[in-house]
Amino acid sequence: MIKQRLMTPGPTDVPPEVLVEMAKPIFHHRTDRFRRMFAEVNVGLKKLLFTTSDVLTLAGSGTAGMEAAIATLVPRNKKVLVANGGKFGERWAKVARVYGLDVDEVKLEWGTALSAEAVKQKISTGDYGAVIVVHSETSTATATDLEAIAAVTRGTDVLLLADAITSAGALPLKQDDWGVDVVGMGSQKALMLPPGLAFVSVSEKAWKAAESVKAPAFYLNLKTYRKSVAEDDTPFTPAVSLIRGLKVALDMIHGIGIETVWARTALLAKATRVAAGALGLKIFSSQPSDSVTGIWYPEGVNDSFRKILRTKYGCSVAGGQDDVKGKIFRVSHMGFVDPFDTIGMVAAMEYTLAQLGAKVEIGSGVSAATKVLKDWA
Amino acid sequence: MIKQRLMTPGPTDVPPEVLVEMAKPIFHHRTDRFRRMFAEVNVGLKKLLFTTSDVLTLAGSGTAGMEAAIATLVPRNKKVLVANGGKFGERWAKVARVYGLDVDEVKLEWGTALSAEAVKQKISTGDYGAVIVVHSETSTATATDLEAIAAVTRGTDVLLLADAITSAGALPLKQDDWGVDVVGMGSQKALMLPPGLAFVSVSEKAWKAAESVKAPAFYLNLKTYRKSVAEDDTPFTPAVSLIRGLKVALDMIHGIGIETVWARTALLAKATRVAAGALGLKIFSSQPSDSVTGIWYPEGVNDSFRKILRTKYGCSVAGGQDDVKGKIFRVSHMGFVDPFDTIGMVAAMEYTLAQLGAKVEIGSGVSAATKVLKDWA
Repeated sequence: MIKQRLMTPGPTDVPPEVLVEMAKPIFHHRTDRFRRMFAEVNVGLKKLLFTTSDVLTLAGSGTAGMEAAIATLVPRNKKVLVANGGKFGERWAKVARVYGLDVDEVKLEWGTALSAEAVKQKISTGDYGAVIVVHSETSTATATDLEAIAAVTRGTDVLLLADAITSAGALPLKQDDWGVDVVGMGSQKALMLPPGLAFVSVSEKAWKAAESVKAPAFYLNLKTYRKSVAEDDTPFTPAVSLIRGLKVALDMIHGIGIETVWARTALLAKATRVAAGALGLKIFSSQPSDSVTGIWYPEGVNDSFRKILRTKYGCSVAGGQDDVKGKIFRVSHMGFVDPFDTIGMVAAMEYTLAQLGAKVEIGSGVSAATKVLKDWA
Repeated sequence: MIKQRLMTPGPTDVPPEVLVEMAKPIFHHRTDRFRRMFAEVNVGLKKLLFTTSDVLTLAGSGTAGMEAAIATLVPRNKKVLVANGGKFGERWAKVARVYGLDVDEVKLEWGTALSAEAVKQKISTGDYGAVIVVHSETSTATATDLEAIAAVTRGTDVLLLADAITSAGALPLKQDDWGVDVVGMGSQKALMLPPGLAFVSVSEKAWKAAESVKAPAFYLNLKTYRKSVAEDDTPFTPAVSLIRGLKVALDMIHGIGIETVWARTALLAKATRVAAGALGLKIFSSQPSDSVTGIWYPEGVNDSFRKILRTKYGCSVAGGQDDVKGKIFRVSHMGFVDPFDTIGMVAAMEYTLAQLGAKVEIGSGVSAATKVLKDWA
């Protein structure tokens, strides 16, 4: 009888309205009914990304969407610059190599991000066909200045592919204004859905570059999805229930306005950072993302913290990976999470730290978080 | 896109496990399958009330159960003492009059409860056949010392009927040990179910007294329910989905143990009282119940407090009734509510009070509540 709160940086909690919608009977996807719904969903996704490009929807995880983009769009005759500041940057370098690309993998210290200046220097050589960055690197809870990097690639022949899986719908992102060529998303993050859908939004510049690319891919060939979406359809069997849920989730997001969602997410992140500070804890990243916060365990505390937090207090957060496994934990601010979940999570954090022998003044974190969150709108 | 938290003293939030169980297909009630389930539920209810008596389950609200008890069990040839310390005490006096009973209605100042001493004096005259008290009077958030009153009626011919609608499963209550003759419950409180079921548990002494009572009732005649339950059955069509949900809810409660549930409820109530104190707010009742807390609005704050709390922060609490309408609000601690809901509710309370111009130090209430709740087990 422990109330569960899912505060991992994906999957995130799904609103009851969405769960109920997804529980409704299946209908067939080769129907006008489906095409009408799919067209509406596409409008909502474009609005979310501030783009006029069609957004392609795949049944798959976020990785499937990013792999499809790399397979379909990235020019083969030039180098691809991949910013590796964590597990996901590392993954896109691996994927690019699978497709035989000449990968320039920039390994960054975890908790830092590639600068626009560094991108500028690299691509000034003329050797690069594409740059792949992770907007919000989940593994390190670190944000990249995507707008600044887009300002560098915009107006050049170099494509900019952004893994926006834990940023789209959470952090400010305006694809067309900024000039981001490819945006990849997943369903189980800020979109408040279960896992199972990937989304890719592709600029005209990227489609043009793709003309020279002969993708060794069938299911993950975005050109096929592009043809279908023009007719409000999908090339393969779509995940109908998830798309039903997506319609409801997008209506909820656009109902309050995406800018309000961004502001709310940022405030939850700020409250978490301030609360951590009040408890004497250090933030992991030097460029913290607002969609997820990484926090160092204090001296003497290990990953049993997460076990107690989950089993005793019902609050699930993520741990660290690779070198920081057992040294940090990560809390999500995406989607259907509110000030009261966040304040509650801070209280659970205080109790757990105290049980593990850390010096915490019970109530100081929640008090600090509550002060920040008073500006909630 | 506001997360809803139902913290009214009934209905209360229903756990997802119970909602999913109730969403399953209906099966027929005149079957072995139903009788097996109903027998199991009855075991769980008896365990909840610490009684060996069968617990009768009616499709109806809590009022239906209490009315059935009054109609079926209360001797007609003597007076009935009714403690009226709020809206529900008042109601049982009305119901008793509908059945032609000679009602001695003791009107108490709201926020106080009838003492065992007062009951002792009254029944010492020998004029009374029954006493009706409200264990936890929801309208005034006040607890009656039911154990002490039962110690007075036990061993006499006088029946003790307790409205335990907002107490059973929340406050300590041991029917057989204490000697309470009739316990009435509803589904939408500590049992964590939607409204729609009433429960009545009847002692052998009360059944004996009922032999002389010719109840002018058909659906609400408990004798009919008694006959059926002996065969694990119901006299009328039962609310099958709710009973399915009840099975799951009882398993959850007994899984952690009813004493633990009582302790948790008491701690949530204490945290709320302490937080109110830290914010300079006064508790309404002089004998506060642990299942619901009534709090006076501070100077200058009116019932728009509840509207802001609900529409802006998604937190529903109850208002005052009759003379204290617009002057107090009431927060539930029953059922599927945890420390983090309670701390969040205190934060929402702080924000709302500040917006209405009350002097509150943001963070002081949550900090105080968090300190109390660190003992959560």
